Amino acid sequence: MTAPWITYRPELKVLDCTIRDGGLVNNHQFGDEFVRAIYDACVEAGIDYMEIGYKNSMKLFPRDKFGPWKHCDEDDIRRVVGDNDTPLKLATMCDATKSDWKNQVIPKQDSVLDMIRVAFYAHQTSEAVDMINDAAEKGYEVSANLMAVSTNTEQEVDQVWEVIAQTPAEVFVVVDSFGSLYAEQVEILVKKYIEFGSPKGTVVGMHAHNNQQLAFANTIESIIHGANRVDASMAGLGRGAGNCPMELMIGFLRNPKFKIRPIYKVIQDQLLPLSKEHDWGPHIQYNITGQFNQHPRDAIAARADDGQRERYVDFYDKIVSDI
Amino acid sequence: MTAPWITYRPELKVLDCTIRDGGLVNNHQFGDEFVRAIYDACVEAGIDYMEIGYKNSMKLFPRDKFGPWKHCDEDDIRRVVGDNDTPLKLATMCDATKSDWKNQVIPKQDSVLDMIRVAFYAHQTSEAVDMINDAAEKGYEVSANLMAVSTNTEQEVDQVWEVIAQTPAEVFVVVDSFGSLYAEQVEILVKKYIEFGSPKGTVVGMHAHNNQQLAFANTIESIIHGANRVDASMAGLGRGAGNCPMELMIGFLRNPKFKIRPIYKVIQDQLLPLSKEHDWGPHIQYNITGQFNQHPRDAIAARADDGQRERYVDFYDKIVSDI
Repeated sequence: MTAPWITYRPELKVLDCTIRDGGLVNNHQFGDEFVRAIYDACVEAGIDYMEIGYKNSMKLFPRDKFGPWKHCDEDDIRRVVGDNDTPLKLATMCDATKSDWKNQVIPKQDSVLDMIRVAFYAHQTSEAVDMINDAAEKGYEVSANLMAVSTNTEQEVDQVWEVIAQTPAEVFVVVDSFGSLYAEQVEILVKKYIEFGSPKGTVVGMHAHNNQQLAFANTIESIIHGANRVDASMAGLGRGAGNCPMELMIGFLRNPKFKIRPIYKVIQDQLLPLSKEHDWGPHIQYNITGQFNQHPRDAIAARADDGQRERYVDFYDKIVSDI
Repeated sequence: MTAPWITYRPELKVLDCTIRDGGLVNNHQFGDEFVRAIYDACVEAGIDYMEIGYKNSMKLFPRDKFGPWKHCDEDDIRRVVGDNDTPLKLATMCDATKSDWKNQVIPKQDSVLDMIRVAFYAHQTSEAVDMINDAAEKGYEVSANLMAVSTNTEQEVDQVWEVIAQTPAEVFVVVDSFGSLYAEQVEILVKKYIEFGSPKGTVVGMHAHNNQQLAFANTIESIIHGANRVDASMAGLGRGAGNCPMELMIGFLRNPKFKIRPIYKVIQDQLLPLSKEHDWGPHIQYNITGQFNQHPRDAIAARADDGQRERYVDFYDKIVSDI
């Protein structure tokens, strides 16, 4: 065995999801300065894509409760990135059933965005197909992100990708929404997605959650098995346990185009202060929901409650009694 | 591929190193109540071994600066565990050159201890052989723990285990002192150690550090490749970035003899309060020393300094300029 971990694959690209997934800790109420700092860090670090938020419904997520990165209107994005005259590509995510995508996704020639990521559960595959076709017709690169795949049967997963493989989606992403997957399961899924995408040479991606402190390890595992599009976020910012930490990912990748210092800088200047107001990371409650392959909502609620945050045993007893 | 992660290997045993490795954050000044709580949790959780501290030199580590778990005198241990009338086996670690092992390790028949773990660097292999022979002659199970293996050449590692394989050591432990190993390197080392131990059927163990949030993942990896003795600690307590968290390990293992609730309880009651006084975990500084395969001492110093703790960029610049 040689040492593949000291060379690199030029085709491996990194997507920063700090604002999009991280916004789930604060209803996407980031100030422009914060978003610009992440954007600048991505550009300086040589990151390939930045997911700057959701394009989700204004009706379901009204402006008085949610910040601009929940909707990503063109004006809001341009206020931060101008015309984005950089090599960094910009993406937003649209959730099936939660996005007014027909109107919210404007033609590519009028937008500073490069990619639309379509997020969907298995039972929403038909809408996802429509969303993917719509975004592709409007001129975007499109990614298909099947969420919570750990809750689907093998037959369901196969059916989803049989259908999605007929669409113009250029990236299929393994999404470990609950942070419950182990390396061996990541291997199975990455190989499966690659197989379904092979007729068109579709790129396979990885979006990991850190419930079991496995987000970085599982992302490496996905790379070993052929994933070439990996998600990470600054200081791991993301819903609940958070995501694969960008600082670990960039420290691991050997492509000299990536620079790690701007990442440490933005973490020091922006994420560290944020961590004193908002709570994310692989805390015990997230370990538990991850290990039980459950949505983190109960864990998020317990962490948000001063009286519950440190009562690990009560939380465990509740989860066990509920299953 | 079936799902090996839902069955178990009865021969896989878990060692708790909370007090031994964790004592490196507080000079082993744990009160008896804390040590007893860890002991009780280990017994209730069905853990196989508890490493209750070091047997290191009283001269090098005087009583006025170091707590009793740096020396593990028989009376100190018995004050907490009595005659240890439980299935939990007790271990201590002796460091080559730092232990007065000839006198400190008393004959097994006079001790409540079951195992001596001999920790050594490659250049200390000759003393390690003497230590292993001495402990085995006195009646103990003996483990050989080659520290900082990530800093040795392949030839050095081979030489160490050629020599150690001639001793009565029953366990060879892969020790990732700097938390710098990736899964593929763990695989190589575990397979190598198994091969060197194969004539006697020596058990191979794993002791991971969490600098890159890979301690749990690497421990799983070691298990996949045949390690059957894994180290973990409550809430990951250990020097610097800490160790593989016991709560994750026990949540992963499927042997029904293991119980996780006592682990959450001791973390809530003992580790959580401790975390407010002492600092450990995979912080940025430890990410950096881990990724550069360096001893964590600079990171520990930076974390201990109020003026430096949050200055990640300065720390990075210093480490980069020093190499």
